[in-house]
Amino acid sequence: MRPSGRNLSDLRTVSIETNVTKHAEGSCLIKIGDTQVLCTASIEDRTPPFLRNTGLGWVTAEYGMLPRATNTRNRREAASGKQTGRTVEIQRLIGRSLRAGIDRSALGERQITVDCDVLQADGGTRCAAITGGWVALRLAVNKLLKAGDVVSDPIVDHVAAVSCGIYAGQPVLDLDYAEDSVAGVDGNFIMLGTARLVEVQMSAEGATFSRDEMSSLLDLAQAGVASLIDAQKAAI
Amino acid sequence: MRPSGRNLSDLRTVSIETNVTKHAEGSCLIKIGDTQVLCTASIEDRTPPFLRNTGLGWVTAEYGMLPRATNTRNRREAASGKQTGRTVEIQRLIGRSLRAGIDRSALGERQITVDCDVLQADGGTRCAAITGGWVALRLAVNKLLKAGDVVSDPIVDHVAAVSCGIYAGQPVLDLDYAEDSVAGVDGNFIMLGTARLVEVQMSAEGATFSRDEMSSLLDLAQAGVASLIDAQKAAI
Amino acid sequence: MRPSGRNLSDLRTVSIETNVTKHAEGSCLIKIGDTQVLCTASIEDRTPPFLRNTGLGWVTAEYGMLPRATNTRNRREAASGKQTGRTVEIQRLIGRSLRAGIDRSALGERQITVDCDVLQADGGTRCAAITGGWVALRLAVNKLLKAGDVVSDPIVDHVAAVSCGIYAGQPVLDLDYAEDSVAGVDGNFIMLGTARLVEVQMSAEGATFSRDEMSSLLDLAQAGVASLIDAQKAAI
Amino acid sequence: MRPSGRNLSDLRTVSIETNVTKHAEGSCLIKIGDTQVLCTASIEDRTPPFLRNTGLGWVTAEYGMLPRATNTRNRREAASGKQTGRTVEIQRLIGRSLRAGIDRSALGERQITVDCDVLQADGGTRCAAITGGWVALRLAVNKLLKAGDVVSDPIVDHVAAVSCGIYAGQPVLDLDYAEDSVAGVDGNFIMLGTARLVEVQMSAEGATFSRDEMSSLLDLAQAGVASLIDAQKAAI
Amino acid sequence: MRPSGRNLSDLRTVSIETNVTKHAEGSCLIKIGDTQVLCTASIEDRTPPFLRNTGLGWVTAEYGMLPRATNTRNRREAASGKQTGRTVEIQRLIGRSLRAGIDRSALGERQITVDCDVLQADGGTRCAAITGGWVALRLAVNKLLKAGDVVSDPIVDHVAAVSCGIYAGQPVLDLDYAEDSVAGVDGNFIMLGTARLVEVQMSAEGATFSRDEMSSLLDLAQAGVASLIDAQKAAI
Amino acid sequence: MRPSGRNLSDLRTVSIETNVTKHAEGSCLIKIGDTQVLCTASIEDRTPPFLRNTGLGWVTAEYGMLPRATNTRNRREAASGKQTGRTVEIQRLIGRSLRAGIDRSALGERQITVDCDVLQADGGTRCAAITGGWVALRLAVNKLLKAGDVVSDPIVDHVAAVSCGIYAGQPVLDLDYAEDSVAGVDGNFIMLGTARLVEVQMSAEGATFSRDEMSSLLDLAQAGVASLIDAQKAAI
Repeated sequence: MRPSGRNLSDLRTVSIETNVTKHAEGSCLIKIGDTQVLCTASIEDRTPPFLRNTGLGWVTAEYGMLPRATNTRNRREAASGKQTGRTVEIQRLIGRSLRAGIDRSALGERQITVDCDVLQADGGTRCAAITGGWVALRLAVNKLLKAGDVVSDPIVDHVAAVSCGIYAGQPVLDLDYAEDSVAGVDGNFIMLGTARLVEVQMSAEGATFSRDEMSSLLDLAQAGVASLIDAQKAAI
Repeated sequence: MRPSGRNLSDLRTVSIETNVTKHAEGSCLIKIGDTQVLCTASIEDRTPPFLRNTGLGWVTAEYGMLPRATNTRNRREAASGKQTGRTVEIQRLIGRSLRAGIDRSALGERQITVDCDVLQADGGTRCAAITGGWVALRLAVNKLLKAGDVVSDPIVDHVAAVSCGIYAGQPVLDLDYAEDSVAGVDGNFIMLGTARLVEVQMSAEGATFSRDEMSSLLDLAQAGVASLIDAQKAAI
Repeated sequence: MRPSGRNLSDLRTVSIETNVTKHAEGSCLIKIGDTQVLCTASIEDRTPPFLRNTGLGWVTAEYGMLPRATNTRNRREAASGKQTGRTVEIQRLIGRSLRAGIDRSALGERQITVDCDVLQADGGTRCAAITGGWVALRLAVNKLLKAGDVVSDPIVDHVAAVSCGIYAGQPVLDLDYAEDSVAGVDGNFIMLGTARLVEVQMSAEGATFSRDEMSSLLDLAQAGVASLIDAQKAAI
Repeated sequence: MRPSGRNLSDLRTVSIETNVTKHAEGSCLIKIGDTQVLCTASIEDRTPPFLRNTGLGWVTAEYGMLPRATNTRNRREAASGKQTGRTVEIQRLIGRSLRAGIDRSALGERQITVDCDVLQADGGTRCAAITGGWVALRLAVNKLLKAGDVVSDPIVDHVAAVSCGIYAGQPVLDLDYAEDSVAGVDGNFIMLGTARLVEVQMSAEGATFSRDEMSSLLDLAQAGVASLIDAQKAAI
Repeated sequence: MRPSGRNLSDLRTVSIETNVTKHAEGSCLIKIGDTQVLCTASIEDRTPPFLRNTGLGWVTAEYGMLPRATNTRNRREAASGKQTGRTVEIQRLIGRSLRAGIDRSALGERQITVDCDVLQADGGTRCAAITGGWVALRLAVNKLLKAGDVVSDPIVDHVAAVSCGIYAGQPVLDLDYAEDSVAGVDGNFIMLGTARLVEVQMSAEGATFSRDEMSSLLDLAQAGVASLIDAQKAAI
Repeated sequence: MRPSGRNLSDLRTVSIETNVTKHAEGSCLIKIGDTQVLCTASIEDRTPPFLRNTGLGWVTAEYGMLPRATNTRNRREAASGKQTGRTVEIQRLIGRSLRAGIDRSALGERQITVDCDVLQADGGTRCAAITGGWVALRLAVNKLLKAGDVVSDPIVDHVAAVSCGIYAGQPVLDLDYAEDSVAGVDGNFIMLGTARLVEVQMSAEGATFSRDEMSSLLDLAQAGVASLIDAQKAAI
């Protein structure tokens, strides 16, 4: 029933290649099916002004998409002079999600910026960015630990994300673009390794959903995130 | 236990005053406790380019906050030259939510822009904007119906929204600023009159939540939205 | 002869409601006929860089108009990314005018920002903003005096403003939109309580005026400002 | 008493050199003392959208100042990405003023843009821009007349401008920078050849003025504008 | 003598992987040593306005660099709201260079946009972008030929580019970052398959060069470009 | 053969008038045929952040063109809110070129900004800007020397620039607009008084060139720059 032939509760093939760039403190190229996101983590010894002299660190994220990551070319945001509302929403989400797995006190007064750049898009880019972004963050923090710059591990748990939605009347896991573009209801579910929830964003365009449907999607998401966290573990 | 002395499942006092401006096709001033949002609906006989010759209409929203709507003055977005990420996220949410209650085919090729401007903020401004925005939209559509510009009512159901969160370890309804600023978990729940869900946005900053907690918040939200829809009915 | 039936030298009904927002140090909602402007005064313990270590304070103003304050919806300035030339001109005028009534040395090194946001427009919004802005400023300064933060009153006189113009060949006081939109000549007159002039802006679009006409308009303005200052006195 | 040794009612030396650029339809370099403004008029066979199919033309103006036209270098507006409030105010004033001397119906559906670029500033640049801008406009219109593109002369009168102010307690004509920078009250007076007023902008920073003082300044301005119009006549 | 141990006239290892994205009409990932640029070519059936109804096509380019493509993180241009001067210069150069190998009449009224995004930077990114961009362009044009959308091949020759410079007093080919950051003189040489020159950009910062040195650099460049064109041929 | 009747190796008439503005530390108006550029040099006792506490100074340049410097009016960059790519490229070139003639250590920690504003354009504006900019810089540095603010002369050599191109199949010196607009190949050559090269920018639009042609253009440029340096010497 799904365009890809997957079962309702099937993730796409997941691949996480680490240390893909020579400059970043942590990096990976995550592929979820045909969606490819290059994630890098950059450490800076300064924090945003509101954290000065608090002893707390910060993790933030930026998100971008190459103009031809999509089926038809999108205008380059740098050329149009501003990030779209969609981009801003997504990068705020990635940042909040990654901070949920961090002990900012253990991190100390430094900032890690996670850049997530979509090289190829086929649905689920923000979830792939969170899942891959966590790997880049983990690798960068490992460098801090190894160098003795932080003494206790600031990463308290895995963070991973998956989308689910109602496609052709059925709850399905990990929508690809062919599904996402027609699904009336979809959601992004961000969870820790403990399965506690970090963020739930369910949204409908031209449709609505019941609590039962929401519950089914949460079930799918929980299983999907568990698999993604296994992939994170395998990668690092 | 709550700073305001409210019970866990108490809404703040709700007031919706309609037809508050002489120019807009529909308008109301909604007050949820000390939060005050002026909502206007403006009808234009044109649609965004992507809808031309489709026979479908569009409902969109813009959100703003007066610089001194808050405890300390915020920079005026018009002066800084761009809307913040928060503003962009909120106005996209309002638009999506209101479209969930509209039959865009019955509306025909016209656009209704709902402006939600926060005169005074005390938590929950986006939910107040949705609840009040629906009233402004309803009144504007009434004008179209009365004038015979549309023949069947494009509004298919009420749309209202409420926030819930975990404050001091307890699930509470309708957070005010004193609660919202310290709650680790909060969410916005947008629902129809039928209690079907339109959008769920649960988010945590420095905390996480379980499915049981999420379920409790949904229970609170369902009751809260029902009361808000009663207030909408009383107002129009 | 006037669309509103007023006499040539009649002001519209004036109403000034004070302390309308809970956050601002001073605030009022001024209504001049159907023109409604919400004015707030915000005190900050810092001055612009050019005044540092001079012992002098600063009063500045910002002006905005809600998108549907007018008969047809205007584009939101925050969305278009810049303030129009008209907005910039008006807020510079308000700031200059209010500073004329202030002893900046008595104010000390602090800044008061007066925000004037037009909720509903029917002509004369900049004059209403000045007249109401002064009330907000007065109330904010009262707080400073009461708290002992300033010792001598930095406010040296009332400041109020009114528009006059030549409508249908006759000098008239306090143009509403129906008049303003067709008047070839109009002017804004800002005066102190002593009737000394602070600013005179007479301007013509597609017309010109004689010195005699200018003199008649000044006579009208002087009487109008006196009435507005009475309204300010009654309000505070 | 004046820094320049001029009498209270003395204009600075005025020089208007015409046809100074080979490309523009009309141009002049106006020098009022050390203030130098290059004015060009450019004709385009299109009008702003709001005038299409009305048979009316438009005259508009833009104003700029070279970064080192002033005593200390100012930031280039093109580099900072926006025109300052002062620039916007001035160019709107120039446009309104020049339109007062034009029969837009006789001009027909075309636009003339008058660019006024200050090469060297020593006070009074906006007045010099109006006086010189009119000459550039006159020369451009002469080309239209000569080519038979317009049949009756759209220019109905001269437009010229001068500043006056209260310097050291005395009303003085045509303030240079040394005076302007300390004068508490100054004004710009734009008039036709008939001595009818087009625009009066009197403004005070840290001072106020009486009607008698205003009257004295108008007397000075009237004489000053008359001399400037003589200079315009001599130039063309 | 070179940090990399290369001989003066050695290119770095060149690799060109084609068809690396599923959406673009043509694409490649070019690696010149550690410099990696993803090039995509997107075909649109419209041209810039200045070419409408001329029968001519257009090839243009955009250039970007991921924030952590470099040793320290650069600010994302989309976030800062504008492209830097360097970016603008480079993308104009890429566009001009690629157009030199195109018969725009044979291309017909369509536009091909070549996006060159630097995934990892180690010197010579603009040259890699041109060399790889040509491959993406070639592949996209092949699609047009295969589909019969163009009848004669619009590509008239190869275009490739290499940098040369004076490092430690010696002319060297294909500078990497370690060399580029200290070379006082460097240049970019863009040539056709015929060895005719398309563009020469020699520039010095804190140094100058003689005609003899320039000649040596041209000799190196000619050999380097020939090798790069061999790599292009092998790739397609 | 040339539209102007000049020989292939003829420069246009060169005129350099110095000290043309009363405010700038150095200034000149350079005319190369009908191209006129006003150049001013402004000294500031601060450097860009990256040079603080290095003992080194900085020379930078900005370039602008009046809207009607050209045959048809161009949009004012300050009004459009950004400098075009062409402007950015040119001002970076001017800055780099002028720095080639400066000993930044002798200059000390100060910045000189050279503004080059094109009053009238007829081809070759960037070269005129460099040649005239050097004169303004020389005059400003003379002031520093005279005042004893610098002890040894930071200017180590002349810098001048000329364009050459292939017009109607022939290499020609100093293209005017009539030639430049049709030449397929043109270049800008910046040299010192010693004839050492500072920058060579050869570029083709719709054409290419051989090394022999490049050599001919360099010959022409060398003679042209020598004449321009004579003109600089005569001016100062």
